[in-house]
Amino acid sequence: MIEGAQGTAYVNGDYVPLAQARVSVLDRGFLFADGVYEVAAVIDGLLVDSDSHLARLARSARELAIPLPLGLAEIEAVQKEIVRANALAEGLVYLQLTRGADVTRDFLAPMDLKPTLVLFAQPRPVAANAAVARGIAVKSMPDLRWARRDIKSVGLLAQALAKREAAAAGCQEAMLLEGEVVTEGASSTFHIVTADDVIVTRPNSNSVLPGCTSAAVAALAGEQGLAIARRAFTLAEARAAKEVFITSASTFVMPVVTIDGAPVAGGVPGPLALRLRDLYLAFARRTGR
Amino acid sequence: MIEGAQGTAYVNGDYVPLAQARVSVLDRGFLFADGVYEVAAVIDGLLVDSDSHLARLARSARELAIPLPLGLAEIEAVQKEIVRANALAEGLVYLQLTRGADVTRDFLAPMDLKPTLVLFAQPRPVAANAAVARGIAVKSMPDLRWARRDIKSVGLLAQALAKREAAAAGCQEAMLLEGEVVTEGASSTFHIVTADDVIVTRPNSNSVLPGCTSAAVAALAGEQGLAIARRAFTLAEARAAKEVFITSASTFVMPVVTIDGAPVAGGVPGPLALRLRDLYLAFARRTGR
Repeated sequence: MIEGAQGTAYVNGDYVPLAQARVSVLDRGFLFADGVYEVAAVIDGLLVDSDSHLARLARSARELAIPLPLGLAEIEAVQKEIVRANALAEGLVYLQLTRGADVTRDFLAPMDLKPTLVLFAQPRPVAANAAVARGIAVKSMPDLRWARRDIKSVGLLAQALAKREAAAAGCQEAMLLEGEVVTEGASSTFHIVTADDVIVTRPNSNSVLPGCTSAAVAALAGEQGLAIARRAFTLAEARAAKEVFITSASTFVMPVVTIDGAPVAGGVPGPLALRLRDLYLAFARRTGR
Repeated sequence: MIEGAQGTAYVNGDYVPLAQARVSVLDRGFLFADGVYEVAAVIDGLLVDSDSHLARLARSARELAIPLPLGLAEIEAVQKEIVRANALAEGLVYLQLTRGADVTRDFLAPMDLKPTLVLFAQPRPVAANAAVARGIAVKSMPDLRWARRDIKSVGLLAQALAKREAAAAGCQEAMLLEGEVVTEGASSTFHIVTADDVIVTRPNSNSVLPGCTSAAVAALAGEQGLAIARRAFTLAEARAAKEVFITSASTFVMPVVTIDGAPVAGGVPGPLALRLRDLYLAFARRTGR
């Protein structure tokens, strides 16, 4: 019983109070971080960009050879039931799929485990996010994560430590670096806008998570005729950029106003980031379901 | 309820059937791999090399700023109660400590969470291990893990994938490589014996887990006047070595007889590895408690 936890969760077919939702201590998600997750935003009670998140869930599971316990349409039905049961107008639906629980602990999993599927709701402002007006501060630091960051696994300890280090410096996100090159944020994709108004985003690879929101924003920017370059960029480029912003399922498009305490883009949210955020919100509302 | 799971587990002060032992879905061990673990071997109903494992547990927890919910002596008392309750003559006591459960999911953890402590028993032959007589086969592969391998965290997905890749090749352990250099096994420390009978072991750093069994074996070898070198070594050196062996809490000292299908040390367990295993078993029995 987790005092203070609110709402209804889904655990392997059952809808239960989140405060009492539990998994076996033998679950490989608990013992080995042997699982994947997705976070879907909800606006006006509707799931945002759902196909993209479900496709990424299927890809992550496939990369780890974890069978999906339900079809993607059925999973979306569970997400919608979580929205309904929690009367979730705005917030997030968290979904975690693990390889399941064995009868004992062994690195090597039997092939016939029954996967564990858990969902719960997180009510919070996502469209109406007060942080947008002031932008966020980020702290750069070495990227300590493993080599398969393209899999959205629950092995998130490096990310959690990065968030803590950022918070200790008064920042809301970590800008992770391999040498001088930016990989991504602890829970977001980084983008810069160059002096000649090109939006620069690192291409997908094993080094970064393929961002659903990043992909949607790139498509929307392309529709508007904005220039986009898919290439890696350095911390120095970010510091000198016309604008810096992040994208993620929970922050959508969020302007960055300082890096390591130094103002970027004059220390105020950049106009292109705000325009892309508006475009994304309109897309989210238009396509929500 | 996990059908087939046997014995008694400890979960935050309660002793419960392992099949029914559960943690909250909000536990950060489940959501973020935000936890650490230790595995203590048991021979003749006694814990092997307990001080060393408890010291490493304390170090891992300190590195992540997870407070210990009990003193180390109290934790050992719980381990002993798990041995007693499970009538564990020979096997392993698994212990996992996580940062605990928040009321919702956020990368950034509140500072006042109550840690989660879970223990359970794993009966299995450890002193009487049939694999020793034939030795094990290992498969080399790139080390995909994060940069803080000195912390014994439950972020073990890379290790689990390595074990699966090794098993698919008919091997019992993975030999993890950074470039041509051996880091360690997926769940063990690698050692080689050179042509002039020097035992070579990689020194501790952020790149490898500080092995409790490795340290004890090195001390025992030193007492016998055996030559020891603490340095990194390459896959090519391992292939050409007089002997190769691994150490871990569950395998103690285990000879390696093939690497990537090619015999090492003539394809039979090496005499020095077997001697060190005997020394370790005598130490384990002498100091067990």
